[in-house]
Amino acid sequence: MTDAYTPTPEDRFTFGLWTVGWRGNDPFGEATRPALDPVESVRRLAELGAYGVTFHDDDLIPFGSSASERSAIVARFRQALDETGMKVPMATTNLFTHPVFKDGGFTSNDRDIRRFALAKVIRNIDLAVELGATTYVAWGGREGAETGGGKDVRVALDRMKEAFDFLGQYVVDQGYDLRFAIEPKPNEPRGDILLPTVGHALAFIERLERPEMFGVNPEVGHEQMAGLNFPHGIAQALWAGKLFHIDLNGQSGIKYDQDLRFGAGDLRQAFWLVDLLESAGYAGPKHFDFKPMRTEDIDGVWTSAKACMRNYLVLKERAAAFRADPAVQEALKAARLDQLAQQTVAEGESAADLLKEAESFDVDAAAARGGAFEALDALAWEHLLAARG
Amino acid sequence: MTDAYTPTPEDRFTFGLWTVGWRGNDPFGEATRPALDPVESVRRLAELGAYGVTFHDDDLIPFGSSASERSAIVARFRQALDETGMKVPMATTNLFTHPVFKDGGFTSNDRDIRRFALAKVIRNIDLAVELGATTYVAWGGREGAETGGGKDVRVALDRMKEAFDFLGQYVVDQGYDLRFAIEPKPNEPRGDILLPTVGHALAFIERLERPEMFGVNPEVGHEQMAGLNFPHGIAQALWAGKLFHIDLNGQSGIKYDQDLRFGAGDLRQAFWLVDLLESAGYAGPKHFDFKPMRTEDIDGVWTSAKACMRNYLVLKERAAAFRADPAVQEALKAARLDQLAQQTVAEGESAADLLKEAESFDVDAAAARGGAFEALDALAWEHLLAARG
Amino acid sequence: MTDAYTPTPEDRFTFGLWTVGWRGNDPFGEATRPALDPVESVRRLAELGAYGVTFHDDDLIPFGSSASERSAIVARFRQALDETGMKVPMATTNLFTHPVFKDGGFTSNDRDIRRFALAKVIRNIDLAVELGATTYVAWGGREGAETGGGKDVRVALDRMKEAFDFLGQYVVDQGYDLRFAIEPKPNEPRGDILLPTVGHALAFIERLERPEMFGVNPEVGHEQMAGLNFPHGIAQALWAGKLFHIDLNGQSGIKYDQDLRFGAGDLRQAFWLVDLLESAGYAGPKHFDFKPMRTEDIDGVWTSAKACMRNYLVLKERAAAFRADPAVQEALKAARLDQLAQQTVAEGESAADLLKEAESFDVDAAAARGGAFEALDALAWEHLLAARG
Amino acid sequence: MTDAYTPTPEDRFTFGLWTVGWRGNDPFGEATRPALDPVESVRRLAELGAYGVTFHDDDLIPFGSSASERSAIVARFRQALDETGMKVPMATTNLFTHPVFKDGGFTSNDRDIRRFALAKVIRNIDLAVELGATTYVAWGGREGAETGGGKDVRVALDRMKEAFDFLGQYVVDQGYDLRFAIEPKPNEPRGDILLPTVGHALAFIERLERPEMFGVNPEVGHEQMAGLNFPHGIAQALWAGKLFHIDLNGQSGIKYDQDLRFGAGDLRQAFWLVDLLESAGYAGPKHFDFKPMRTEDIDGVWTSAKACMRNYLVLKERAAAFRADPAVQEALKAARLDQLAQQTVAEGESAADLLKEAESFDVDAAAARGGAFEALDALAWEHLLAARG
Repeated sequence: MTDAYTPTPEDRFTFGLWTVGWRGNDPFGEATRPALDPVESVRRLAELGAYGVTFHDDDLIPFGSSASERSAIVARFRQALDETGMKVPMATTNLFTHPVFKDGGFTSNDRDIRRFALAKVIRNIDLAVELGATTYVAWGGREGAETGGGKDVRVALDRMKEAFDFLGQYVVDQGYDLRFAIEPKPNEPRGDILLPTVGHALAFIERLERPEMFGVNPEVGHEQMAGLNFPHGIAQALWAGKLFHIDLNGQSGIKYDQDLRFGAGDLRQAFWLVDLLESAGYAGPKHFDFKPMRTEDIDGVWTSAKACMRNYLVLKERAAAFRADPAVQEALKAARLDQLAQQTVAEGESAADLLKEAESFDVDAAAARGGAFEALDALAWEHLLAARG
Repeated sequence: MTDAYTPTPEDRFTFGLWTVGWRGNDPFGEATRPALDPVESVRRLAELGAYGVTFHDDDLIPFGSSASERSAIVARFRQALDETGMKVPMATTNLFTHPVFKDGGFTSNDRDIRRFALAKVIRNIDLAVELGATTYVAWGGREGAETGGGKDVRVALDRMKEAFDFLGQYVVDQGYDLRFAIEPKPNEPRGDILLPTVGHALAFIERLERPEMFGVNPEVGHEQMAGLNFPHGIAQALWAGKLFHIDLNGQSGIKYDQDLRFGAGDLRQAFWLVDLLESAGYAGPKHFDFKPMRTEDIDGVWTSAKACMRNYLVLKERAAAFRADPAVQEALKAARLDQLAQQTVAEGESAADLLKEAESFDVDAAAARGGAFEALDALAWEHLLAARG
Repeated sequence: MTDAYTPTPEDRFTFGLWTVGWRGNDPFGEATRPALDPVESVRRLAELGAYGVTFHDDDLIPFGSSASERSAIVARFRQALDETGMKVPMATTNLFTHPVFKDGGFTSNDRDIRRFALAKVIRNIDLAVELGATTYVAWGGREGAETGGGKDVRVALDRMKEAFDFLGQYVVDQGYDLRFAIEPKPNEPRGDILLPTVGHALAFIERLERPEMFGVNPEVGHEQMAGLNFPHGIAQALWAGKLFHIDLNGQSGIKYDQDLRFGAGDLRQAFWLVDLLESAGYAGPKHFDFKPMRTEDIDGVWTSAKACMRNYLVLKERAAAFRADPAVQEALKAARLDQLAQQTVAEGESAADLLKEAESFDVDAAAARGGAFEALDALAWEHLLAARG
Repeated sequence: MTDAYTPTPEDRFTFGLWTVGWRGNDPFGEATRPALDPVESVRRLAELGAYGVTFHDDDLIPFGSSASERSAIVARFRQALDETGMKVPMATTNLFTHPVFKDGGFTSNDRDIRRFALAKVIRNIDLAVELGATTYVAWGGREGAETGGGKDVRVALDRMKEAFDFLGQYVVDQGYDLRFAIEPKPNEPRGDILLPTVGHALAFIERLERPEMFGVNPEVGHEQMAGLNFPHGIAQALWAGKLFHIDLNGQSGIKYDQDLRFGAGDLRQAFWLVDLLESAGYAGPKHFDFKPMRTEDIDGVWTSAKACMRNYLVLKERAAAFRADPAVQEALKAARLDQLAQQTVAEGESAADLLKEAESFDVDAAAARGGAFEALDALAWEHLLAARG
């Protein structure tokens, strides 16, 4: 069935190989699905209308492969890309699965391991660029601690900065067209992870040698694991000019990392997110970083992958209808969004002017003016559900 | 009783007038305690060993006071300060209690209200400087939203930046010796508040016209309401050179803002926090922003104020003992904290060097090395409880 | 505009007087709206299509009113009910606003206060019955503690049991047709509240003298403040035969008690909740216990009240369409909901039979069968959003 | 070193084989430690002063072992028990690791799997009894759902009841001296788990055929994952006569299941928990269900196991000192704990008596009386930290 919600490559939907390829192992259970050939993933996702795929080094090339194995794998993968027209706009490094990274990669207390981690990243940057990627994601899932004594966080941030500065220099030296996107997460698998939110990552970037090469890759569920409003975080990242990439999925509140398909979890935030991305003209890939439920067989995998894209398109349609509705435009004005867009202080006005104005300000009259947010939110709810009378 | 845990002004403990002065009104209940005269608070806190007090404009001078009332109040307050030797190192503005601020101050959708808010801040900055304050805190508790449609966050951040830039200019123009400390909070009283965490505030500051004049004022409970590790956030603020002030209190996990006395709530984070502040040589005021339980009468108020200071001193003693213990120093080395302090890449080393080294890296041997964190954390636990055998 | 989502009294929607009457005071702010006359609330809610209203004693009759004031207020209120045809199916007691209840009512450590609390309840039970109520709600918002030493919880549960047993006896003695519904909440305004969840309340009831007279009054946001799945809790209450009443509102995750209008907050749980209530044939009042946003004037109050009912009716329509869709029925079967409804062990089968069968059970084949939940959930999502192709 | 905190079997400390035996696999990482021989665990734990061990069937006997393999394993295990004097007071079933249980055991939608699950439990009950266990724990970690449509919770509770009733009958038929302890958990590995809290489990038990055979096995971290006060939950379980077993560990707030060693995580709740268990004369095993940090090698495993016991004994000492301190006894009286223990209504008093008394009750005087909780809590804090002046 093809309808208005059927994706095409123009929608720039991408999937991590590790998403559809997740086998279902969790803290309390073994894999429930067989391994999935990356080439099969490329073909199936292309059929479903995706734009491209992304990968951790180890998703494509098993940890410890020889040089010749590596070459054969890459050649076969590239052929599938060529045949399907699928792109690889982003790649990343797995610095968390192998036991050697149990205390982190860039901030492991063990210096030899930090050096090994850097080498692993460099090697995969070369491959990423070779396959056409222009964004390199860095999720430091093991950079953290369970005990306050075990990690001197200020020193660890020095090491984190050292690593990113080194990698930035490498990319410049190689003449690569590649930017980094740091992915924050508050906890899991570590008790507390460094750079736990979009804000912390944005702030960290400003202390790097080449801040212009670094942005963020926020993930829906990661911010929501801290109870934060995801669209608000994205808005601040856009405001800072730093939304280099985005990971779309679903999460049901503050708990373990669920990686539900996009649209599941907090539906209202999903609506406002799509509204924001579309309003802001975000042009990067819409990247799904989700896990098909562990209960599912391979049919459930493709069903959920398809639903990620479909859900985005449904929400995009609803957000557009919301913005186009004259009643909404009126409600936005009633809620004074137009006033918010005006400068508070006019050119040439001084503190003295404000102080003088304040003396005669009718504070009770101003306090009595209603915000008109309930009406606006009710309209949004009805557009989201296609329930406008 | 005077013992090792009895505070003196040298400890630089300060209290907000609104803390001991909180009357116990909450969302479901009316005030349980009578109003407390600020002058009485100054005297009692001085007796208990505090260094100073801080205030919101409205704590000292009721909203809507006339100029003459204002003068009389300030004169009487200043006299109490002079008589007791108490300082006012910080002040701040109440932009949240009066109904006029129901949609915020700096980012209210209502432009007139934004202008009034700026004037209110300016007026209190003058008083703050007059009373000797060198830090001005800004908590934007009403800058936020309950609906995605009601606040264009990017535009609201423009307004927030406009406000802080204007205030920074004002301070420079007046030749004041004053820096701003932005206080983040994730939610309550708004559904979601802008600049929800230390990270978001640090990142925002970098986009201001005069970032050097702006730092953060993190509050224990505010970060913990997002499930974040408070000492980690403080470490990042210190790393960024931005810990201008700190609000100490207690919180029992992710729920409403509890403002328990310092030491209550998450005791282990309190320990690591004191360890960090003392290790880092934080020299600013240790400011308690707490609420004595609503069940208490005035005796409970002073009991809890005293306990805030005492608890800090107990934890300071325990952290010092922890750091001085040779067994701890050995455990820190076993956990390779010394290696974390070393640069990952030596001067002159290149990516090629790292790649070459990685080829022969014994990954299994490295993976098998234990982190030694359980032993270190067990030692910390025993020092905290004074239970070392 | 009258459409399919316009409520009528047959829908049995009810509102607390304290909901539309909330004046906007919160922990950080004063009231933003004037007091609302209960009679005005009755009239306006009747116009909007509500079935009835509910009240705490103090909502109707200010604390400390004289007997004659009380009579006049009740007479006038009753007249408004008569004129509009509005019902009072439920009433409850305010044991939390007045400072005397700062440590609780039934479990206050102060015995005199416990006795006063009981009297306050008894008095309002008489009025409730007089006005036709058949359900009496008990929310023990102040029955809790901030410190482990301050409340011996086992003893406090004895006192709670004593209070409910006494009240049950009173109702029997008076020959009233009245049942009690206990309303759980995990925290706020106390650090931890006794009977924090639906489960704890259900368990407590079983230890009362007359368990048959006691059920629960779960509130959407209260369970979600503990991160619990609200429909799951309701299902267990229904399973136990104990869903005597229900409080509908919205909450955005684990934070302070938001009391958003119904439908706001977790939209997917709202959908499954309506699906459950309608499937289960819940016939009691659908009671909205929400707070119009504090930013709003009186127009926003009525807008949000109307939206509570409308949202329920939209979700009811969507749930019905979901259940009626043949594709859904097929998906339910694919997900083996029919098998779940079958007994696991047939009549006459023994443990030995099961052990024998297990010996030849093809565990790998069973493990490979997909759960088919992604497809089912995708269908639900599309029905909720009216986006079925 | 032997000191006051050195455990002996009289302390009745027990450990799950799966705790020290956890290999460190988590959602994002592979095992970091080699498999640990159960016999080695028995010997080492005995040396450390433990009383016994517990196990899931699969911990001892790998899933799919033949009858002869099983016999050999059991014989060798029993010999280790005999040699060390270690007991097996509890056992349980693994109904969560193997992919066949991906949708649960007792409430899997797949009837064949439910039957297999029952057989697996029965088989291990026989072994448990053979090894001397008198408590059988049931944690239904996979009994839950990620989608509202995929599980009819009322029907699933029917199946859960059927399973437990069947098992209860089996135990009676066999003449076993065995009771069941249900272990609640709110989520992880399922999005929402049935019987999510101590309260829900207690309530469920009351609907079983033989409620007297069923109690709860609460786990510290499980309740804290819902933000609930663990000692409060334990107090309600004790009050109901249902604390059949307990799982001690640590958790740092609402996030993934951390299973930290006992004493880590929320230290104040750990203190109040030990105070409660000791005050209440809880005589069952103190069972540690924790995971040594994944960063650790085998030394860290034994260090953390030892610390679990030691921490309990430190807290026990502190709680005893708290209760024995005359200042505390005075503070408890000031906080009116003695009044809480008195009946609210004396024998023979009626509602009319209370109503009459209320008429002349001096509510303002009562409201003004302080709770005296800050002083009491400050004393507790100082006893916990051994910081009494």
